[in-house]
Parts: sequence; C-alpha cells; structure tokens
Amino acid sequence: MTTKIALDCMGGDYGVKVTVPTAIHFLKSHSDAHVILVGIADQIDKALKQTPHNADRVTVIHAEEVIGMNEGPAQALRTKKNSSMRLAINLIKDGRADACVSAGNTGALMAISRFVLKMLPGIERPAIASFLPTHSGQVCMLDLGANVDCSAEHLFQFAVMGSCLVSSSGGSNFPSIGLLNIGSEDSKGNEVVKEASELLKHSSLNFKGNVEGTDIYRGTTDVIVCDGFVGNVALKTSEGVAQMLGKYLKEEFHRNPLTKLLGVLTSPVLNRFKERVDHRRYNGASLLGLRGIVVKSHGAADMYSLGFAMQRAYEEVKHSMLDAITDNIKVPEQREL
Amino acid sequence: MTTKIALDCMGGDYGVKVTVPTAIHFLKSHSDAHVILVGIADQIDKALKQTPHNADRVTVIHAEEVIGMNEGPAQALRTKKNSSMRLAINLIKDGRADACVSAGNTGALMAISRFVLKMLPGIERPAIASFLPTHSGQVCMLDLGANVDCSAEHLFQFAVMGSCLVSSSGGSNFPSIGLLNIGSEDSKGNEVVKEASELLKHSSLNFKGNVEGTDIYRGTTDVIVCDGFVGNVALKTSEGVAQMLGKYLKEEFHRNPLTKLLGVLTSPVLNRFKERVDHRRYNGASLLGLRGIVVKSHGAADMYSLGFAMQRAYEEVKHSMLDAITDNIKVPEQREL
Repeated sequence: MTTKIALDCMGGDYGVKVTVPTAIHFLKSHSDAHVILVGIADQIDKALKQTPHNADRVTVIHAEEVIGMNEGPAQALRTKKNSSMRLAINLIKDGRADACVSAGNTGALMAISRFVLKMLPGIERPAIASFLPTHSGQVCMLDLGANVDCSAEHLFQFAVMGSCLVSSSGGSNFPSIGLLNIGSEDSKGNEVVKEASELLKHSSLNFKGNVEGTDIYRGTTDVIVCDGFVGNVALKTSEGVAQMLGKYLKEEFHRNPLTKLLGVLTSPVLNRFKERVDHRRYNGASLLGLRGIVVKSHGAADMYSLGFAMQRAYEEVKHSMLDAITDNIKVPEQREL
Repeated sequence: MTTKIALDCMGGDYGVKVTVPTAIHFLKSHSDAHVILVGIADQIDKALKQTPHNADRVTVIHAEEVIGMNEGPAQALRTKKNSSMRLAINLIKDGRADACVSAGNTGALMAISRFVLKMLPGIERPAIASFLPTHSGQVCMLDLGANVDCSAEHLFQFAVMGSCLVSSSGGSNFPSIGLLNIGSEDSKGNEVVKEASELLKHSSLNFKGNVEGTDIYRGTTDVIVCDGFVGNVALKTSEGVAQMLGKYLKEEFHRNPLTKLLGVLTSPVLNRFKERVDHRRYNGASLLGLRGIVVKSHGAADMYSLGFAMQRAYEEVKHSMLDAITDNIKVPEQREL
C-alpha cells in the first residue's frame, strides 16, 4: 500500500531548496511512498525541474501563504488558512495524506494540528516526542515542550504514547518506561510525579520506576516520560553540553602547529566520533496524541537531516502507530472500573 | 583573621582517608585557615599521624555516630544527634567554626543545617547552588535539587542568593541573572516562571530575562535560576551527556591498533581536554539561605576534588557572603511598600 507523506515545503530555514530534493531522494529509497509537496507552486516546480524524479509519485499542492518562524501560534491558526502548513495538515484530515512533515514554526504546527485533526480518544494533551542517542542505542523522550504544566494523568498518557512510538520504530514490543525524577526512590519528586508513578505502577505498561537525568543517555529505559518544561530544558541543556565539549576539543586541537598536525592525523577517528554524535540522525520529533501523524523537523535541517524526519513519519504510518495508541490508551473512566 | 572550617571527616565514600589529608593539604596553601576535623577520633588521629601537619592549626572533635549515605533526612535529624555531620554544623551555630564542609548525605545535611542554623531573614527556602563550566568561564546555577516545588518568590530569593554567591567567588559585582525557561519570549513557561520574571524585572538585580537550556553552558549569564526539580534534571542530564560523549570518544580511539596508536600520540591533547572538563574542579555545592556557610562535596570526591569544596567554603567566609545576602534580600513586606 502506498504511503502518502505531505511535506510542508516552505517550512524551515531553507524552504524548497532543501525540502523538494529531500522528498525526491526519499522516494528513491521508499518504492511504496508518494510525496505531496505543499507550498508556493512556482518555487516547488522550479526546484522539481532541477531534480530528476518520477512525476507519478509526486503531487504538488499550491499554498499562497507561509507561516513565519516567529509568528504566534494563535495568529497563525486564525489568519493563515491557506498556508502551506495548514494545507498539509488538512490533507491528513481529508484522508489524502497518511502523515505530514514540517520544518516550520513548532507552536503553529502544534496549534494547527490540534485544531484540524483533534485529539485521539483518551488523550487530553498532545506531546512532543523524540529519540535521543544512548550509550548503546536510543531512547524515546517526551514531552519535550508542548506542555509546561502536566497532571499525573497527562504523564501517564505520555507513557502510553511513548511506548507505542518505540514499538512503531522498530524498537521493543514491550518498551521499558522510566519516569524522570530527581532520585530513584519513591519518596522523591513533586506530587504530580509521585501520583504519575502510582498510575504507571498499576498499569499494564512496562514501568521501571523513577529515573534520573543521568539515565537518559545511559539508555536505562526505552522511554523517558516528563513534563514539557523539564523535557525541553533537559534536551536543550544536552545540546549545550555537547556544543561546549565540541568547542573545547576543537580548541585543544587548534592550540599550536603540533596539535593541529595531530588533529589532521586523527581526523578519521574524530570524524567517526562526530558521526556518532551527529544530532541530524535524530531529527524528527513526533507530535503525539493527534488523530494524524505529524512530524516536526528541526528548522535548520539539511537534506540528510530532513530525510530522518520523513523516515520517522513513514515508520509511524507503516506500523499503524495511531491504532496502537488508541488500543493501548484507556480513557480514565474505563480505568476506574 | 583566621578562617575556621569544620570538616565532617566521616562523610563521603572514602571517609578519613580522603578528608584528613585534604584538610592538611588545604592548610598549606591557606596560611590563615584552621581546620576542625569532626568524626571518630581514633580514625582521624590515625590519619593525622600519616600526614605531617602543624598541630596548632588543627582541632579534632570526636563524634560517636556517622550518618549513612542512604539514611532518611528526618531520621538522621532525629536520631543522630552525635553524628559527625551534626556536630560539625553545631560548631557554626556555637560560633566555633565559620563554615562547614561535608561529603555526606545531602538530604541529611540540608535537614540538619536548616534545623540547627535556621534561615536568613527574608529567605524562605534553602537552595543548592553550584558552579558549572561554560564556553569561556563559569556559571552559578541554583536550585539544584533542594526544592521540588517553588513559588515565584522563592525563585526571586534564589536569584538574590546566586548573585551574592557569584560576587563572593571572585566574579562580577553585579552578576547577570537568567531565568531558566523553555524559550526567551515573555510568553513562554509556566505561571510560576512568568511571575518570577516580573518580580526580577522590578528588582535591583541585573536580570537579563529568560534563558534556555543551551544558555547554561554558553555562559549567557553569570547566574541561572530555576526550581530544584528542573535544576537537578539539567545537572544530571549534563553529566549523562558528558559521560556518553567520553565513552564514544574512548571507543573510537580503541577501535583498532592504528586508532590506539593515534590515541597515544594525541594523549597530551586529549588530557588537556579532559582536564578542562574535569568535574572535580567544580566540586562544592553551596547550601544557601542558611545562617551559616555550608558546602556539600560530592560523595565520591577525592583529595583534588574535596579541596575545591573547601576552597568554596573559605571564599564564602572571606567575602562575607551571608552579610551580602542579608543586605540584598528584601523581605516581601518591604518590597510591597
């Protein structure tokens, strides 16, 4: 069966220059995929002309408007009804696309997706989930910034969704779940986390208890659940540490002619290291909880990076992730029985 | 004037083997310091015998009990009234020591310090503050785990204390302050953070607005303020990232005989890099807000590391940090006028 992916071609820092060739490249490695390129048709057509492709597997949908990276979500939702992002999301609702990928404004993407697609039954809040590298694999972490305040019930729902995302990404069928806290003991944390821990303990999920910040990159569990404030800070702090260490390492190799020479000699080793920590390989954050598959790419994504976001969307479709979430979530009323 | 530092000799993973020689070593570089070694006298005396020292600048105080690393704070407070930690804190209250350093149980140290010393006027909650490396210097971050739930007023008080700590550590006299959030815009974050931002804007502090996780290690501001849950997660996540990157780098240099040889050749460069990111240089978390100077060392601290925690305590005494906090904090009633 064909998997149709709608791509917001205007989103991100580079627009059609990156989005169109990435989509065409994606088709080459996915024979059952079809891409719907949404954006200013002139620009898309021009980019398509420069990229040899099979026209049967590409649809272009013209959008007059583009949502700016700094536009407020509420305004974008109200006033940009013909934006590339909005039309791409509409395609899912209309059953014309199986998933949507956008490198545009995160807040607007979330607001529009929520408004157009609505939530899955039993899920109260959408969450942003992403995979991060660990010592020996990867971990799915959520929420990474959609919800600054969460109830225990929300955290529980995030756990269910994260679990389904891992299973839909070639991971374990019974993913282990950790609740991000400031200590492993039950007595640690705030009331919301303690209550969420109780909900998770009494669920059918593979809950492993509290985990700490150090556990994220150790890969102690397959899923890490937290509220969006904590998750966003943890993610950005990680980026900050990696940037600083990278800068330090570079500085040490640039200290004098001898160290520079050593840098050249060791470049194959250092390049392999860089490759392993290349954040582009983890591009593609899933907006979970919606009645549709929506993946947010980093705004600064290049072709290599955006390809991973498209791959994420493709896998979620192939593994029927939405059905999995619906099957696994129990609405609170049912759980009370 | 002599600076008297009480050292809980039993705390930490290595006890007197590390604490006693560190104290003696500290005296060598600080001619105006006096150390009060608190713990099981037999053990301390034995360690002292193995370390040549000037007996005039060393006092030993016997403590019968030791608080375990996993003991509950409430229990430690209630039942271990003759513990090395408790007696060391008592010395501050009795005016016999200017500061206390312990590598023991954090929760117990906080509970005992708060109970024995009480809070400074205008400060409602103690906070744990530490310095972290940045691209080009260091940043003071608090709270790192003492308070899982904070009000805006608490965050404001943390900002005042962090500011005083920076000034008392050879940093700026008017330290810049950032409020940790999930975006730089005023509209971002939860209600507590938004309210804290308003309090800070209308204060006499050098408030720079919201900062994000990436800003911590960029050194965007001299102080980063957040609640203890977020701060603890950010700190431990940073440790996790650094561990993982270190592991990756090591693995790449151990891949085959050639990369191993390159590793040996570049070891001077790699060692300088390791030195720069050596967390031991940032050991010593200040327990702020108390009527006394208390510094918590990492439990696994070696001599090199513990020396930095002692240095932190020494500097806080020398720069009269407690007076600075008292002078700079305005109790809420006063600010309302």
